[in-house]
Amino acid sequence: MTTPAPLNPPRRILMGPGPSDVHPRVLAALGAPTVGHLDPYFIQVMNETQSMLRHVFRTANELTLAVSGTGSAGMETCVVNLIEPGDRMVVCVNGVFGGRMADVAGRAGAQVTTIERPFGEVFSADQIAEVVRRVQPKVLGIVHAETSTGAWQPLEEISRIVHDAGALLLADTVTSLGGVPVEVDGWQLDAVYSGTQKCLSCPPGLSPVTFSPRAVAAIEKRKAKIASWYLDMTLVKNYWGQDRAYHHTAPINMNYGLHEALRLVLEEGLEVRIARHKRNHLALKAGLNAIGLNYAVAEGIQLPMLNAVLIPSGVDDVTVRKQLLAEFGIEIGGGLGPMKGKTWRIGLMGETSSPRNVLLLLAALERCLTDQGATVQPGAGVAAANAFYRQA
Amino acid sequence: MTTPAPLNPPRRILMGPGPSDVHPRVLAALGAPTVGHLDPYFIQVMNETQSMLRHVFRTANELTLAVSGTGSAGMETCVVNLIEPGDRMVVCVNGVFGGRMADVAGRAGAQVTTIERPFGEVFSADQIAEVVRRVQPKVLGIVHAETSTGAWQPLEEISRIVHDAGALLLADTVTSLGGVPVEVDGWQLDAVYSGTQKCLSCPPGLSPVTFSPRAVAAIEKRKAKIASWYLDMTLVKNYWGQDRAYHHTAPINMNYGLHEALRLVLEEGLEVRIARHKRNHLALKAGLNAIGLNYAVAEGIQLPMLNAVLIPSGVDDVTVRKQLLAEFGIEIGGGLGPMKGKTWRIGLMGETSSPRNVLLLLAALERCLTDQGATVQPGAGVAAANAFYRQA
Repeated sequence: MTTPAPLNPPRRILMGPGPSDVHPRVLAALGAPTVGHLDPYFIQVMNETQSMLRHVFRTANELTLAVSGTGSAGMETCVVNLIEPGDRMVVCVNGVFGGRMADVAGRAGAQVTTIERPFGEVFSADQIAEVVRRVQPKVLGIVHAETSTGAWQPLEEISRIVHDAGALLLADTVTSLGGVPVEVDGWQLDAVYSGTQKCLSCPPGLSPVTFSPRAVAAIEKRKAKIASWYLDMTLVKNYWGQDRAYHHTAPINMNYGLHEALRLVLEEGLEVRIARHKRNHLALKAGLNAIGLNYAVAEGIQLPMLNAVLIPSGVDDVTVRKQLLAEFGIEIGGGLGPMKGKTWRIGLMGETSSPRNVLLLLAALERCLTDQGATVQPGAGVAAANAFYRQA
Repeated sequence: MTTPAPLNPPRRILMGPGPSDVHPRVLAALGAPTVGHLDPYFIQVMNETQSMLRHVFRTANELTLAVSGTGSAGMETCVVNLIEPGDRMVVCVNGVFGGRMADVAGRAGAQVTTIERPFGEVFSADQIAEVVRRVQPKVLGIVHAETSTGAWQPLEEISRIVHDAGALLLADTVTSLGGVPVEVDGWQLDAVYSGTQKCLSCPPGLSPVTFSPRAVAAIEKRKAKIASWYLDMTLVKNYWGQDRAYHHTAPINMNYGLHEALRLVLEEGLEVRIARHKRNHLALKAGLNAIGLNYAVAEGIQLPMLNAVLIPSGVDDVTVRKQLLAEFGIEIGGGLGPMKGKTWRIGLMGETSSPRNVLLLLAALERCLTDQGATVQPGAGVAAANAFYRQA
């Protein structure tokens, strides 16, 4: 066969639901010289990565590491380690990722009970209290930041309810970690997974996870073997822990990238980073509202890093996204599931979350909407965002 | 917490069981700008990667792609997609990776029958014929290149026997692909997985897999859902196929690296690359024999890319490996399982397989062995390797 041409990726601005823009230092780290996966140097990288992950997860959990797969592998890791066939698990479904978790739990042999909210809404404490009383589950799984809808689920009160019922709380923080507070110890979350390609701004490929001592005890009490060998934390923890027992070969260079991405988070400071995400979200919102775009999610539960807005009637979803990509190199996301064709998902995650990108997107979107025949007051979006930045 | 220092990996020469040395072009590709995982550009990268993988696997199989995990995830992918609970599977165990496959198969619910050979030996066609006659399995799993022992298992005759019995053949080519012939179509292999960090010389993180039309038909006939959502090929193939249906977010930059690594394989030519692995292996062997080191595996089944040699009595395994690493930056592997402390595993995989590395290792090893009090004729190893190169 003919050898394909060398790589020459276009330079995008990644304002979709992830991956987000990657800092040049992280890209450089990915290309650092590969060492062996049991090299003393790589063991140091693993140790430092674990420490930094604990800092970002706000936890002292010993079992905190990066699973050698993407966020969905992290979801599967949390589920298959906690669930034995026949265990009762409640999964809260208000978007694609809650639905995915129910699917994963069923495959792991759980007796799954789902409770639902329409896409874009979140669960009330009362609804959680009712279901844990009724089902008495071993585990309740819930999504902190629904990437498919942009809805922000409060977890603190729910965690008390779940623990009062003697259950474990499993939380998806793929999109929230590093962008809004995730207090693993403060909220007593038991099994938590995330992704690298959202607010941590590392390319996709690894999934940070953390397990509370309660979760570890539940894993140690299992009778059945964990369904997945690759994701079996009783084996993986001996590789990341003191023993350094060979399990699989960790993705060395991906871990270099995560190490550098976490260093950037620490340098900025977690609180400063969270405040940055909020500020740019509010500026974007002011601008979007000024050009007539409304959020798909109610005030108060809007995720700062994932802005889901309703596509105005008469405007074609795909045409606009193609124009943004072709003319400006900007990627935004379309809707998923029942939101397909009805919403755009505008990401302001990690490196992407900047005043520069907020202004550029508003300017570019004004152009696309106008080309679609929508009535947009020229310059209104940029003006509103600038006014916000000037005040904030 | 204090932010750890920036990455500064030592420059190793990776002569262990993998990862192998990575070409600078591959490292550069890893650091190319990240694009979205459904970006038209990334779709082109996926298509080209699939074509190149088909070329390297010597197959026309449509279902050929890179699983978003390491080689062990590829093993689990092949097993969980083919096996439904209660299915009979034979696993041939002559090393650590056969043992791992039996573990994975058991977790997937297979009724597992193992047959065994001592570490370092391979299976005869007769032994395979006997077990498939007796067990009538749905799948027989076997390791082409046992990374833990350096034994090279012939597959062609075994494949006929397995198919005559109506079973599917699952083969581990993690260490063999790109270093010795792997003829997926020619030998009619049904489910095959590999790794990126061996003879393809890309860092670890992805697992190339390929499934024959027979294997795909078996997957389509399943009644039970595939135990792993993450590794479910009926979903993954819609992401890599025409539909581009969102499944998980592929590790974009790791796929860049694999794309460049495969381009290097194609530029060199698969046959030339295989001949290079053989030539450097024979030179190394001449040199090792000249300094009194013998192979742990019998003549005729020695893998060219993984040279397992017996550690001379009186020589300390760990001391020598530490000295090689500290003084020369050379990594070689220790033994696994029953071979621990008894063998060294010297990798000549992909980029690592060069006359330069052969000579350097022989020279450095002479030094370490002498330091250990072993009797080594000064310069004999290098002289023997040079003599081989001069003739070959």
